Amino acid sequence: MATLTIVGAGMMGSALCVPLAERGHEVRLVGTPLDREIIDALDAKRPHPKMKVALPPAVRTFHAEQMVEALRGAQFVALGVSSAGIDWACQHVAPRITKEHSVFMITKGMRFDGTRLHVFPDVFEAALPEALRGVVRPAAVAGPCIAGELARRVPTCVLLTGRDMAMLKRTAAVLRTDYYHVWPDDDVVGVEACAALKNAYAMGVAFAAGLHEKHDGAAGSVAMHNYESAVFAQALYEMRLIVRAVGGEVSSVAGLAGAGDLDVTNNGGRTGRFGRLLGRGLTVPEAIEKMEGATLECLAILAQMREATVAMRARGELAAGTVPLLDHMAAVALDGEAVDMPFDRFFGAGAEPRP
Amino acid sequence: MATLTIVGAGMMGSALCVPLAERGHEVRLVGTPLDREIIDALDAKRPHPKMKVALPPAVRTFHAEQMVEALRGAQFVALGVSSAGIDWACQHVAPRITKEHSVFMITKGMRFDGTRLHVFPDVFEAALPEALRGVVRPAAVAGPCIAGELARRVPTCVLLTGRDMAMLKRTAAVLRTDYYHVWPDDDVVGVEACAALKNAYAMGVAFAAGLHEKHDGAAGSVAMHNYESAVFAQALYEMRLIVRAVGGEVSSVAGLAGAGDLDVTNNGGRTGRFGRLLGRGLTVPEAIEKMEGATLECLAILAQMREATVAMRARGELAAGTVPLLDHMAAVALDGEAVDMPFDRFFGAGAEPRP
Repeated sequence: MATLTIVGAGMMGSALCVPLAERGHEVRLVGTPLDREIIDALDAKRPHPKMKVALPPAVRTFHAEQMVEALRGAQFVALGVSSAGIDWACQHVAPRITKEHSVFMITKGMRFDGTRLHVFPDVFEAALPEALRGVVRPAAVAGPCIAGELARRVPTCVLLTGRDMAMLKRTAAVLRTDYYHVWPDDDVVGVEACAALKNAYAMGVAFAAGLHEKHDGAAGSVAMHNYESAVFAQALYEMRLIVRAVGGEVSSVAGLAGAGDLDVTNNGGRTGRFGRLLGRGLTVPEAIEKMEGATLECLAILAQMREATVAMRARGELAAGTVPLLDHMAAVALDGEAVDMPFDRFFGAGAEPRP
Repeated sequence: MATLTIVGAGMMGSALCVPLAERGHEVRLVGTPLDREIIDALDAKRPHPKMKVALPPAVRTFHAEQMVEALRGAQFVALGVSSAGIDWACQHVAPRITKEHSVFMITKGMRFDGTRLHVFPDVFEAALPEALRGVVRPAAVAGPCIAGELARRVPTCVLLTGRDMAMLKRTAAVLRTDYYHVWPDDDVVGVEACAALKNAYAMGVAFAAGLHEKHDGAAGSVAMHNYESAVFAQALYEMRLIVRAVGGEVSSVAGLAGAGDLDVTNNGGRTGRFGRLLGRGLTVPEAIEKMEGATLECLAILAQMREATVAMRARGELAAGTVPLLDHMAAVALDGEAVDMPFDRFFGAGAEPRP
């Protein structure tokens, strides 16, 4: 059995405790400074305040200031901070990583440095002590996983992606249970780009359900499924273009991290719910208010991708006019424009004359 | 404006009348011998009996025995018979096609001849008068399109795929409206394979929703979305393997005909509903009874693919054990086995040892 330290006691970090503790591993859950109430609740043997599920009693909990103790002797360190918490992790966790640690991220996202996009495993690796860079190769979990479902043992399939295949196989073997299925994958750039992008695209896929609700539509076979599925296909088309532009494998877009995670985020994720609210015609501030403080990764990734695609076009990595869905979603979510899907510009089809 | 003859007055053939008539084309709708009541209802100016929508008054209707009259002077002939009706179309429509006709199929499917799979445009081309084979190249419409939604003018995106790009562009330009978006596509084998396969795979994707209902689950963020999206990704993985084996382009699987149509068929199609019933634990006969006579293409395609994959493996086109989802769906739908998803065998991952 192994010792794993999970940093970040939000939904996903906490959910991962369930299969790991049930495998019999020693699991240590460390709250960030934002997780103080969560750790206190767990220490008092109450259910996780956000996930409404009790964690297995064997899980040991730590506050952020106990980081050194929590990391001591652990073979595996999982980073489950929010996308916005990556800086904190680089400052407070990275310096304490040693060559005995195998590190993997649960946090999904990319960072734009003003010139290029970087996936989080690379961002975190750059923050490691110099001697460990190129030695400890952080991996990342990606794929369709609603945290509350994993914590309730719903069968879940994910990828563990990174640059050190031996580490990936070793880590996957430690993570797997009979309901948490983990596959090693070597396309860290493509998979992590998908994991970040799906948070934007799921918003656009969800517009259709909101539009249908707005027109008093009931669920059923006649709704706006044609609209939704066309946007779904266009999302995959644009994700392929962007993944190729950042140097990932286009084939990853059809897999768990792309199509799979896009599907789950639309159907069961916060971003999907937010997109439905916008589709119903709520303004962005109204929709944000309805989300009751839930983290909205889609806004951050859309703002970042709007800048990043300008740079990518300038370098010739992305042709003009090829990501009209991304452009429209940014206009809706960042500029307050009304939803008006540019179907005619989908699939690079401007070349075809309209009637 | 053009003259188009649509053969087959079921849901999809009839729905296509709506955008075409609204474009101002002359639209002729011909019932098969099974569509007699539908044509009679339309002649009496009643709504379409299956779709519950009135067709535009300009649509001219014909019974099967008026085929010659209906085809005379048409530039475009669309085949909207059911998959099972393809033989009838080969016998009763193909001999009447002339070189003045541009032909496209709305019917989706593949035929297994005991050795190889053939897409319907090729099956129909082989039934044409000898002088027209290689001259009239039948095309096909594919992509996410619930007929009842198209008839209600829900924005819809489809591919028009075939082997004659000039014909595809000409035909797409005739079909397009401001809510029916049509893109020419040259991967007829890959796209049509996707169009056929999604009818099988949507059943498996829908098992999750049925399992959730069986356990008295309410809709919401904690359901069995992880399960559903994992199966969705595995469906695309297996479709890629099969499309490659039959000589199509793997990239089509991520597009409208693959991921897009799989999504719509799960959410709004008959096959999705059938899969949910099986997921709830109904036996196959019970589920068929609940479907009230709806055509279940999934059963035909599963039976065919079970035979076809044996032949493909024997020829070395498909590796053993790589389509466990297809195998499981066939066992459930054809042999009455209980739903028990083989997640461990997904993504060709048998190579990885389980804990």
